Amino acid sequence: MSAARDRQDRLVKPPGALGRLEDLSVWLAGVQGRCPPAPFERVRAVVLAGDHGVAARGVSAYPGEVTAQMVATMLAGGAAVNVLAELCGATVRVVDVTVATGLRDAPDDVSRHKVRTGTGSIDREPAMTEAETLAAVGAGMAVADEEVDAGADLLVTADMGIGNTTVAATVAAAVLGLEPVEVVGRGSGAHDHCWAAKVVATRDALRRSGFGGLEAPGLAVQPSWDVVRLLAEVGGGELAAMVGLLVQAAVRRTPVVLDGVVSGVAALLATQVAPGVSDYLVAGHRCPEPTHRHCLEWLGLDPLLDLGIRLGEGTGALLAVPLLQTAVATLAEMATFASAGVSERVEPPPQPSPPAVQPAPVPFQLAQPEPAAQTRGGHYDAG
Amino acid sequence: MSAARDRQDRLVKPPGALGRLEDLSVWLAGVQGRCPPAPFERVRAVVLAGDHGVAARGVSAYPGEVTAQMVATMLAGGAAVNVLAELCGATVRVVDVTVATGLRDAPDDVSRHKVRTGTGSIDREPAMTEAETLAAVGAGMAVADEEVDAGADLLVTADMGIGNTTVAATVAAAVLGLEPVEVVGRGSGAHDHCWAAKVVATRDALRRSGFGGLEAPGLAVQPSWDVVRLLAEVGGGELAAMVGLLVQAAVRRTPVVLDGVVSGVAALLATQVAPGVSDYLVAGHRCPEPTHRHCLEWLGLDPLLDLGIRLGEGTGALLAVPLLQTAVATLAEMATFASAGVSERVEPPPQPSPPAVQPAPVPFQLAQPEPAAQTRGGHYDAG
Repeated sequence: MSAARDRQDRLVKPPGALGRLEDLSVWLAGVQGRCPPAPFERVRAVVLAGDHGVAARGVSAYPGEVTAQMVATMLAGGAAVNVLAELCGATVRVVDVTVATGLRDAPDDVSRHKVRTGTGSIDREPAMTEAETLAAVGAGMAVADEEVDAGADLLVTADMGIGNTTVAATVAAAVLGLEPVEVVGRGSGAHDHCWAAKVVATRDALRRSGFGGLEAPGLAVQPSWDVVRLLAEVGGGELAAMVGLLVQAAVRRTPVVLDGVVSGVAALLATQVAPGVSDYLVAGHRCPEPTHRHCLEWLGLDPLLDLGIRLGEGTGALLAVPLLQTAVATLAEMATFASAGVSERVEPPPQPSPPAVQPAPVPFQLAQPEPAAQTRGGHYDAG
Repeated sequence: MSAARDRQDRLVKPPGALGRLEDLSVWLAGVQGRCPPAPFERVRAVVLAGDHGVAARGVSAYPGEVTAQMVATMLAGGAAVNVLAELCGATVRVVDVTVATGLRDAPDDVSRHKVRTGTGSIDREPAMTEAETLAAVGAGMAVADEEVDAGADLLVTADMGIGNTTVAATVAAAVLGLEPVEVVGRGSGAHDHCWAAKVVATRDALRRSGFGGLEAPGLAVQPSWDVVRLLAEVGGGELAAMVGLLVQAAVRRTPVVLDGVVSGVAALLATQVAPGVSDYLVAGHRCPEPTHRHCLEWLGLDPLLDLGIRLGEGTGALLAVPLLQTAVATLAEMATFASAGVSERVEPPPQPSPPAVQPAPVPFQLAQPEPAAQTRGGHYDAG
């Protein structure tokens, strides 16, 4: 990273003039352990998909069946994630973690890690057992390993699951000690009915599970075992899998571009389980959902883009990939002042040392107020 | 544009979920007059280069000779603009408008439109004659025509000129009725000495030319002839050329991504001369220089990126090009709910009309204060 900083200052541009691109290039040099960092050869968007029993409570403007339909659309190449991935040279992998229906003719790499069909409705019952939760976390870890083994050098988190912003809001409320109304937003565009149903479901889930209101605000859940219990009670399959994916990506020293709400909440949990994970994360964009703002604030991540995107599917993160590619390319390919024969910055003339400053004599005496007993009305006036 | 809005709502995503990408796609459909808009086939970054006599006043951390050296670096492919252009599939054209030295072996398309070598130091003399200013504006118009004739379907403004943020700040101060300290920033990274010299030069230029302090704040310069006189007095070659380029790009119905300070000030002037120009502009990024903020505010443009980039050379604008490409691609290539067989949004149940509200009787009488004459000390108290 120090070699990268040094090289940035020798490129034909004023120091710091490329702003955050310079920071990104230094970070990527650190992640890769080389300067300049190598260009990304295999950018991989991983869409973790799952259904949520709570979708039956009307928390989304879309019916739960849309999860499986969108997975099919992604496999056919017609979803936003496909279009965005192609534009930045990424490829897409879809992983069915807990989709409610079987996916007809799904390739093995989609269904290999399936944990269960759907989850319990978190306002009335646990989402999953702890064993299933650990299986989902393990699925994410396995996917990270498979992808890195296959050459992925940049991972992009993505998710698909009707109802998953309700689940994410509930987990964030539990972890950060927030009220449902502080974290619940309109997700994919919920109308007032849905928003109210989402707040009620979140409140009921926190009350039922005992994760809400019991702890002081801020990082209520600390030990890693509790993270598993939290995910089992009020989480979801793709959220648990994403926690595993983030942890294992860091183990494999692979940088990750975070997308929106589900990614943000997964990063909250992953960095609690393994604090070093945060060294491998960059926030691709800011999503308008309040949960996301709280997550980014807590993680201390400043998102690269802020374009009002609230689609999920990794779209915001994929839009940020060209910024990372550019950060690497500028550091690697720009000429230096020396190589281009360009004149360097002129430093300001050395300043003569200022003469030692003598404290100036106080030029006037502050008027002393008369003692209080002699004043009228307790204040100074012209009389 | 209305067809584009309609199509956006049929794509497999919640309405509005792609945020500003949707707005961009609708705008580009309008600019191109077709839905979906065609993908860009020839994105062209046009670097307008010029020197400034005022650079001799120490307003920049770099010596004036760097302008010609950087033009040579760009022609050799080693500058930031080259690296960024390649990454988004754009090509670069460099145009010498008023570079101080002759450029050895420069191709004809670089030097064809050269107006003069360098400009006068605006704090002591006019930058150019009005005839030279009109020639520079005409150069920009000719370049726009040449590029559009050669197939450019998206133009990216770019500039290179040591001292040009001083000139841009002076013009912005004159047009917007601002003080030098409100518009002068550190440009390419000026240290305190340079910043002070920049403020002094701006102040002197405004005083000498009579463009400062004579008019009420806000849009002091209205008729187009005055814009030419303003550019002649306190402007510069690449700034004048960029005004011409923006106007002619609009005439040719070609969208333009604006870069930083010089582009912003040129857009201020171009939209005064020809208000319709603003329909063809998008602000690529926000540059930290105060002049740029004032320009964007006045133009009502919300920049796509905010990454602290202050390099110029079109870098911030080129970084935004993938966002425009993505906006076009998502509208054109994403599946619709119908084509993908995905279930549509569930609308909320119709609400019964609420019963007519009767105004509730006032539940209590507000205590009336006693008349002032009967109170003690002019205020109400417990006594």
